[in-house]
Amino acid sequence: MNAVRCLAAALLLSTNAVAAEPIVVKLQSISDEEVLATQDRWCAALVDISATYRSEGQTAAAALAGRIIDAAYGYQLGTVLFKPTLTVNPQTFRTTRAGALSYFVGGNPDFPNDTGFALNDWEKCEHNTTGIFITGNSASTMGKVHFTDSEGNVTSVDKTWTFVKDDVGELRIVVHHSSLEYTTE
Amino acid sequence: MNAVRCLAAALLLSTNAVAAEPIVVKLQSISDEEVLATQDRWCAALVDISATYRSEGQTAAAALAGRIIDAAYGYQLGTVLFKPTLTVNPQTFRTTRAGALSYFVGGNPDFPNDTGFALNDWEKCEHNTTGIFITGNSASTMGKVHFTDSEGNVTSVDKTWTFVKDDVGELRIVVHHSSLEYTTE
Amino acid sequence: MNAVRCLAAALLLSTNAVAAEPIVVKLQSISDEEVLATQDRWCAALVDISATYRSEGQTAAAALAGRIIDAAYGYQLGTVLFKPTLTVNPQTFRTTRAGALSYFVGGNPDFPNDTGFALNDWEKCEHNTTGIFITGNSASTMGKVHFTDSEGNVTSVDKTWTFVKDDVGELRIVVHHSSLEYTTE
Amino acid sequence: MNAVRCLAAALLLSTNAVAAEPIVVKLQSISDEEVLATQDRWCAALVDISATYRSEGQTAAAALAGRIIDAAYGYQLGTVLFKPTLTVNPQTFRTTRAGALSYFVGGNPDFPNDTGFALNDWEKCEHNTTGIFITGNSASTMGKVHFTDSEGNVTSVDKTWTFVKDDVGELRIVVHHSSLEYTTE
Repeated sequence: MNAVRCLAAALLLSTNAVAAEPIVVKLQSISDEEVLATQDRWCAALVDISATYRSEGQTAAAALAGRIIDAAYGYQLGTVLFKPTLTVNPQTFRTTRAGALSYFVGGNPDFPNDTGFALNDWEKCEHNTTGIFITGNSASTMGKVHFTDSEGNVTSVDKTWTFVKDDVGELRIVVHHSSLEYTTE
Repeated sequence: MNAVRCLAAALLLSTNAVAAEPIVVKLQSISDEEVLATQDRWCAALVDISATYRSEGQTAAAALAGRIIDAAYGYQLGTVLFKPTLTVNPQTFRTTRAGALSYFVGGNPDFPNDTGFALNDWEKCEHNTTGIFITGNSASTMGKVHFTDSEGNVTSVDKTWTFVKDDVGELRIVVHHSSLEYTTE
Repeated sequence: MNAVRCLAAALLLSTNAVAAEPIVVKLQSISDEEVLATQDRWCAALVDISATYRSEGQTAAAALAGRIIDAAYGYQLGTVLFKPTLTVNPQTFRTTRAGALSYFVGGNPDFPNDTGFALNDWEKCEHNTTGIFITGNSASTMGKVHFTDSEGNVTSVDKTWTFVKDDVGELRIVVHHSSLEYTTE
Repeated sequence: MNAVRCLAAALLLSTNAVAAEPIVVKLQSISDEEVLATQDRWCAALVDISATYRSEGQTAAAALAGRIIDAAYGYQLGTVLFKPTLTVNPQTFRTTRAGALSYFVGGNPDFPNDTGFALNDWEKCEHNTTGIFITGNSASTMGKVHFTDSEGNVTSVDKTWTFVKDDVGELRIVVHHSSLEYTTE
């Protein structure tokens, strides 16, 4: 329950008489602060999966990744439009939870090209957001995300996310397009 | 699960390869047909409560009304802005589920003026909708609702509803303003 | 242009390089502060029409009312679901600009029962908002509005408004349901 | 004016009496058919710019591209989150109209790496949409777009678009992320 709903709930404990301050409920409404915080959590989660893989192995990493997908993405809302950085035809788009999980941690024979992006020993993940476009009940962001591994190598990607808010007030990723930087070299 | 989601789910059982037909998910999106069907259900529910009261008494009617409120209104989303037809100051607005239930079936000492609107032997309920305004993720309607009791007396009210769609695809009333017709007589 | 758009415009003057702070555009997104300010303006506008009528007559009041309707309501968006306080059948609902203008200032033979609500010598208009429900790209409010005339008489109504934001960032009323208080006396 | 608004306008010509059929206004609400039609127009526009360049030169192509951007993108709404296929750091993201125009037709010294993507002699442009996610007042799509030049060479990109509807009922692109296909070869 987010802060706004907590406030609303507190007010609802009082009487039905006209209140001095109006009850305010913000349903399906998204702020830029919420978007930035959700991006931070996505980065932290990726690093967590890497750390879990190092210390506990693939099974534990896959279990954690599954919980993160269930908490952060919107597959249960119908689908997610997910184009990961490193997928190839004919499995470029991962519109199912199984396809997303395989991309992050590999190990699924139905997706034989997946090696597990989250298993690449990532130690740091940072986003540098160029813009946030809030339409009311959805918010899209675009920018760079920089991944640093344990040897200090940095991989930078161009990333677009679209978020919606579910009935309990949590943002969910419903669009995710990631691509390696284009270079003329 | 509504028709659109069923279709999406069926498509998701197929592969992640590019599909001939795109997956279509409609989240928080409302059609005028859905709005009219929801209004029909509201009317049918009111008549049901009346019939249950006649045949089984107030306790059974209250239990049914509670289930209907939980299914049709959005109190669990934070609040509902509900101005029933016959409430008086200082309890005009019913922003809690308890206040709504009391209005429909009475019997709550915290709302001493409520006699139970749904207990008035209603045999027919019809809506005549003047307009539907769909903003994307909410829809408002305005029009007349006509209630006919067992003796053929008709009560007409002016009614405004605003609906949102929850995560499982059901419309929920989040605004409900009802008023007796103004007359210069 | 609202504050958020001003900020966005200012940032856009800089380069397309990744900015330290993201550009933030909030389209069709509504805050509770905006809603309360819009209600204040509605009240001030009503008192203005009354004052103009007293000092300059019906023609000037009608011209002002027309400008206010064009600025505050959403008739140009398709329609407004408007149930004024004192309209009667078969012209209860005012889904056209002409019907709204006639309600506020009268003088239209197509609406013979209208005497002009805004011409009633109002000196004060206050709203007491019970709740605000923001769905993302629309916001609804419910509460009391109290009108005080030059002799100190107060008329209180129960009022519901739904607002959307147009492309230039202004809130517009698309639903307006007003009704006299119900009383058992 | 789209079909729904035309219907609403026609109904508004009738009286304010309760109508047999409700007025229906769909503001900021997007259908999958509208999305697919808009994508078709985008493809047709790109081929048009190429043809204009061949027959009339860069100045005419740039003028046409400017009109297309103004009609199809949402720069006037605040910004567009645009990551074109072939841009490079530090000008990867094109959040201004000038940056978008330069990408399509080149010729702007402020964007020295742009050669004009739309000038590549494109004869055919087809989209193959994997999914459409409609949130109510915005719609996102993801899929492949295939560009064929006059020698039959095909360039395929992964593309994400997010659309909103403006006040006159036209869809506008507010997010556009395009990237070359990743390959392990």
